[in-house]
Amino acid sequence: MAVQAVESTSTSTVSLGPAAALSCRECGTRFPLGPIFACQECFGPLEVAYDLPSGGPSQAAALKKRIEAGPDNIWRYAPLLPVPADVADKPNLNPGFTKLVKADRLAAELGVTGGLYVKDDSGNPTHSFKDRVVAIAVEAARAFGFTTLSCSSTGNLAGAVGAAARRAGFRSCVFIPHDLEAGKVVMAAVYGGDLVGIEGNYDDVNRFCSELIGDPLGEGWGFVNVNLRPYYGEGSKTLAYEICEQLGWELPDQLVIPIASGSQLTKIDKGLKELIQLGLVEDKPYKIFGAQAEGCSPVSTAFKAGHDVVRPQKPNTIAKSLAIGNPADGPYVLDIARRTGGAVEDVNDEQVVDAIKLLARTEGIFAETAGGVTVGVTKKLIENGQIDPAKSLVVLNTGDGLKTLDAVAPTTGPTATIRPSLDSFREAGLG
Amino acid sequence: MAVQAVESTSTSTVSLGPAAALSCRECGTRFPLGPIFACQECFGPLEVAYDLPSGGPSQAAALKKRIEAGPDNIWRYAPLLPVPADVADKPNLNPGFTKLVKADRLAAELGVTGGLYVKDDSGNPTHSFKDRVVAIAVEAARAFGFTTLSCSSTGNLAGAVGAAARRAGFRSCVFIPHDLEAGKVVMAAVYGGDLVGIEGNYDDVNRFCSELIGDPLGEGWGFVNVNLRPYYGEGSKTLAYEICEQLGWELPDQLVIPIASGSQLTKIDKGLKELIQLGLVEDKPYKIFGAQAEGCSPVSTAFKAGHDVVRPQKPNTIAKSLAIGNPADGPYVLDIARRTGGAVEDVNDEQVVDAIKLLARTEGIFAETAGGVTVGVTKKLIENGQIDPAKSLVVLNTGDGLKTLDAVAPTTGPTATIRPSLDSFREAGLG
Ligand SMILES: [Zn+2]
Ligand SMILES: [Zn+2]
Repeated sequence: MAVQAVESTSTSTVSLGPAAALSCRECGTRFPLGPIFACQECFGPLEVAYDLPSGGPSQAAALKKRIEAGPDNIWRYAPLLPVPADVADKPNLNPGFTKLVKADRLAAELGVTGGLYVKDDSGNPTHSFKDRVVAIAVEAARAFGFTTLSCSSTGNLAGAVGAAARRAGFRSCVFIPHDLEAGKVVMAAVYGGDLVGIEGNYDDVNRFCSELIGDPLGEGWGFVNVNLRPYYGEGSKTLAYEICEQLGWELPDQLVIPIASGSQLTKIDKGLKELIQLGLVEDKPYKIFGAQAEGCSPVSTAFKAGHDVVRPQKPNTIAKSLAIGNPADGPYVLDIARRTGGAVEDVNDEQVVDAIKLLARTEGIFAETAGGVTVGVTKKLIENGQIDPAKSLVVLNTGDGLKTLDAVAPTTGPTATIRPSLDSFREAGLG
Repeated sequence: MAVQAVESTSTSTVSLGPAAALSCRECGTRFPLGPIFACQECFGPLEVAYDLPSGGPSQAAALKKRIEAGPDNIWRYAPLLPVPADVADKPNLNPGFTKLVKADRLAAELGVTGGLYVKDDSGNPTHSFKDRVVAIAVEAARAFGFTTLSCSSTGNLAGAVGAAARRAGFRSCVFIPHDLEAGKVVMAAVYGGDLVGIEGNYDDVNRFCSELIGDPLGEGWGFVNVNLRPYYGEGSKTLAYEICEQLGWELPDQLVIPIASGSQLTKIDKGLKELIQLGLVEDKPYKIFGAQAEGCSPVSTAFKAGHDVVRPQKPNTIAKSLAIGNPADGPYVLDIARRTGGAVEDVNDEQVVDAIKLLARTEGIFAETAGGVTVGVTKKLIENGQIDPAKSLVVLNTGDGLKTLDAVAPTTGPTATIRPSLDSFREAGLG
């Protein structure tokens, strides 16, 4: 996607809870909160900077108590997010607080003894972690007075934006490549907003969206993953908050996180650091591992080669929700993996399918291909000694297997087909 | 399904929390807890009878406090279910406590002013309410020493049993008609238990299962919807508990519930009555409305004709999860609808699809066809004056739209397809 600075159309002071400003991740220049996403000095990406409580013991205890008394969704963390304090009272999909599953049977298969957990984001309203990030973007869109919610998408995001827009009372207009699979088109279109097929590939869709943002035609439009991207990205911090709270306000020793643009991994790291700073968890080392599919592994390739620069790849993998060949946050991911003593690894499509089935048959969790990637990479990192099986481990499943049925369909079917008789059943040897 | 009495293979006293006995719904004869489902006196269906607390004010307050301090799933209601007290510590899918969505935009479209809520069970682990009933059956299976979990199914139940069995460490063996759609086969097979296609229709599958239960080959097998049915059914009570707790421990004035076998509706009524008896909610009249698809509307037909007997129909509807032509609990449903001042109504397939889209575009909830049936029937009952729009109303969505994409696919697609240019976008009139 073209990096492009856009002037804020709403320079009046907006109030988004503890969010104080946007700050450039490259040069540190600060800008007032607004619908901008690139530094006007150096074109670096902007992120939300906060005024957070000091983290003294009594403040930490008060904050913890306030969070625990909050709703069973991401809004329990409103004091740490760029959202107004009354966000929980506004109509939205209320994503988050998904299950952290203690995966003892998977742990036994993988030889993990230090506690293995699957953070299962298939439990979100549209069954992927995208509901988290979109929910934050919706609040920013409200604050900036936008009336249309938009995005470019090849899958999960289209449905998440369509659904969130309707609940919140926005118009939506989502752009997809014209040749998307029929099932994905239905999921994107069923919420009744505008859905526009673009004759071209995903790059063409993105280029078109960038043009539209710069044009008067796009006035009043919030593109969740473009001009609202700094806010949108913050939604992934809630995964860090929930994991620690669900572990009893403790940091896990190790996390395995999928990499698409890399934003989710960097924001989870940001969230963990905030919890430490706020005194909500005790400071201790944790390792972050990134997971990619071999057919789209630019970050993994750079990590293994010891490079700081990520060389773009042309994606070719069944893990389509991770198929970003030129991941914007790739260099930040490399930094985090190296700084925390983690790693970035990849698995091939066959290993992805095997891992989906492994998770399903051990824990009854049917993951999207992205979940197959994290479970597969976890297995590989345990086998090659980079993950310590004696320490606690959290693996992310970011989406639902119902969305990527095609990945497992060719190798998933009945054990046997029989006539409706006990004899036939006996012959099949299943009794 | 053939009604058949099976001798308990485990007559030792089992402990399933407050469950005291099985009791015949026709003649009242009581039997010890065991894997039986039909009265040995009159062949009537058996249900679980309880020793529940008295319902005095202090006992009610204590129970309420205990529930509210419980886990965010159905086990918070363990004191009211046929499960051991430590159930929450055992490995299982932990379904329930799904969102009760205040549906203000849908209310505005339907003219409801008394408060409209959608109880959205698509948030369950395998995305249908079946996870609730299966979870209770799993506990009964543990108590009776069964090692294989089984069922006959044409859809949601197969996945729910497959997933629950794996998490809980059971073998599973699920029976389906051999010609089930490919997507449903994948959902049923992916958990890795045995999946057996039966050459025949769903009736043949059921006949075969009844044979298997009576044969030594089926020893140690728990068929969740046959020999574990009395326990299984109780899982639907949790919908009643959750709705009232989520309304602030209040009964809704009106509920719209889909009818397949009718079990869910009768158990929700049972749950509401228990809450009144226990003093957890204030007693007041409530009306229960049953919803069917026109293509399989034996209960609705009987209700409108004023009959007590339900005449079987041959199902022909897109709402396949409700397509039971000879609903076992049909007469009980008629009783409840009449006793509470409710009704039973049906809508045709086109109205089902329209209602799915109505819910999606107003609330961002993508429902299974069964949810289209309840929303469609709600609309119809408001229009014909049987539902009072000035009183509170809860509508059930029992499953996820991702499972019945085919129902909406033919009429759901892009608004427009354009070239990747602003001119082309302008021409399409979408700016
Ligand atoms: Zn800068
Ligand atoms: Zn009887």
